[in-house]
Amino acid sequence: MSSYCFGIDVGGTTVKCGLFKTDGTLVDKWEIVTRTEEAGKNILPDIAATVMEKIKAEGIEKADVAGIGVGIPGPVKDGKVPVAVNLHWGETDIEGILGGLTGLPVRAGNDANVAALGEMWKGGAEGYDNVIVVTLGTGVGGGIIVGGKIVEGAHGAGGEIGHAHVDDSITDPCNCGNCGCLEQVASATGVVRLAKEALAAKDPSVVTVLDPSDVSSKKVFDAYKEGDALAGEIVDKFASYLGKALAGFACVVDPDVVVIGGGVSKAGQPLIDAVTRYFWEYAFSACKDTQLVLAKLGNDAGIYGSAKLVIS
Amino acid sequence: MSSYCFGIDVGGTTVKCGLFKTDGTLVDKWEIVTRTEEAGKNILPDIAATVMEKIKAEGIEKADVAGIGVGIPGPVKDGKVPVAVNLHWGETDIEGILGGLTGLPVRAGNDANVAALGEMWKGGAEGYDNVIVVTLGTGVGGGIIVGGKIVEGAHGAGGEIGHAHVDDSITDPCNCGNCGCLEQVASATGVVRLAKEALAAKDPSVVTVLDPSDVSSKKVFDAYKEGDALAGEIVDKFASYLGKALAGFACVVDPDVVVIGGGVSKAGQPLIDAVTRYFWEYAFSACKDTQLVLAKLGNDAGIYGSAKLVIS
Repeated sequence: MSSYCFGIDVGGTTVKCGLFKTDGTLVDKWEIVTRTEEAGKNILPDIAATVMEKIKAEGIEKADVAGIGVGIPGPVKDGKVPVAVNLHWGETDIEGILGGLTGLPVRAGNDANVAALGEMWKGGAEGYDNVIVVTLGTGVGGGIIVGGKIVEGAHGAGGEIGHAHVDDSITDPCNCGNCGCLEQVASATGVVRLAKEALAAKDPSVVTVLDPSDVSSKKVFDAYKEGDALAGEIVDKFASYLGKALAGFACVVDPDVVVIGGGVSKAGQPLIDAVTRYFWEYAFSACKDTQLVLAKLGNDAGIYGSAKLVIS
Repeated sequence: MSSYCFGIDVGGTTVKCGLFKTDGTLVDKWEIVTRTEEAGKNILPDIAATVMEKIKAEGIEKADVAGIGVGIPGPVKDGKVPVAVNLHWGETDIEGILGGLTGLPVRAGNDANVAALGEMWKGGAEGYDNVIVVTLGTGVGGGIIVGGKIVEGAHGAGGEIGHAHVDDSITDPCNCGNCGCLEQVASATGVVRLAKEALAAKDPSVVTVLDPSDVSSKKVFDAYKEGDALAGEIVDKFASYLGKALAGFACVVDPDVVVIGGGVSKAGQPLIDAVTRYFWEYAFSACKDTQLVLAKLGNDAGIYGSAKLVIS
């Protein structure tokens, strides 16, 4: 068995790179720039070059490298990307091209799915192999792990849980084109939406530290922790949407654990507690003790998960 | 490779049995009584006896039998059942006991999950390996297949999609104890609920063939096919609940195809068309051409799927 593997997390501006031992020990991590110009034609050669340099610099035998895992911001199906807008890519055979450049085995996955795999391997879901990961950032991403493997889906859209429909009353479109998606109420922007609605509807006599002209997800959760009643209502509504939706997803895959990550999750345990209340209320009986936990790996989830891709 | 396998579908009153070739050809099917008395202690010995008799009667070499697959009405985890109320069973190690009695490999699964596997193997989803199966009967059951395998889940509750929460306004409890489950609006009893609500709320001037004192799912769908306007409203509401819910489940696992079975699905293609309209409206962009199809195997899905268990 090989001793090393690489985990590469390709973003629109930087490529995060990690050299791992196959037991999951992070040996080194670094970043290179994502050169998206000329239809992103340099991205895979740049990754090949930095990997080969690292192998040389560390004095590692190439035969002792299990391979390179790559997370991509776009759908991935059988190692190929039909399109990755942020990388300016059309159809790209990542495993074929990067494998050809390096002579190493390559495995590719969608970045959100790969981050979920990282959280399963060495993060909030370590020790489990049936996991729902939901990432609350600007949008709501996700990844589903069943039996230790990413659920890629028929179109590479497994884990796109941010686009489950949760509210008939929302009439403005989500980025995906539909209306009433989970992403519209449970992302950072979603929390701001709920806050603005609550502020606009509140009775003038209600006192709150929240300022309609300068509201953010962080400010809402900070105010919630300080006991602000209006922030409490907003967080409760957010938690209701997210907890109910996660309970529904749990009816599909019955996970060992649900991991919540992304920028919004920096609110920490109070957020987990609020969402768990609704999750347990609406979960199927068999899932009523399923735990919701915080993600642990932050921005490193992608390099961990992509490294895990080549050794699982 | 072995040439034969057995598929056994254990119900509360009868045990359906099938002898298959491993290519999926059904050689013979028959039933025995489910003897639930004395805590169901005879059920597994009765299955062992009927299987061994069949092997003898058909002149099959035992070495040419891949094994026995068994579908059980209850949660199954790693071949064991913690409890199966309809069989009067407490904790039962099906694979251990039946394997011991027959000397054959045994694999067990939950009956709804196993039926889903049958539909994947030789039914509505033949040729695919990522499938959502929803069964609309007295309740709403389901099974999720990812990569050709049943999603069993952490507690054997994978595919319990009838208990996803879909309506906050329902205040009477589902059989599971929660309120507002998909099962309460999309099962045969759910359609009757929707029909009674529509009949109670209708304007006296509205003419309908539906009779509040004698309404059934079949009568609603029959009236719908005849162009009855009120039945149209009821079917539309049913389809809205089910289509939206399935679109949400598709965000989780991104199936190749969704199979709809069970007694309610005898309404046929008009039902599929009604649900598909909502599914496509609410599905994530990548899933907007995912097909909904009718189940094909009817009551035989369980014997097909349990047979498939031992050869997959």
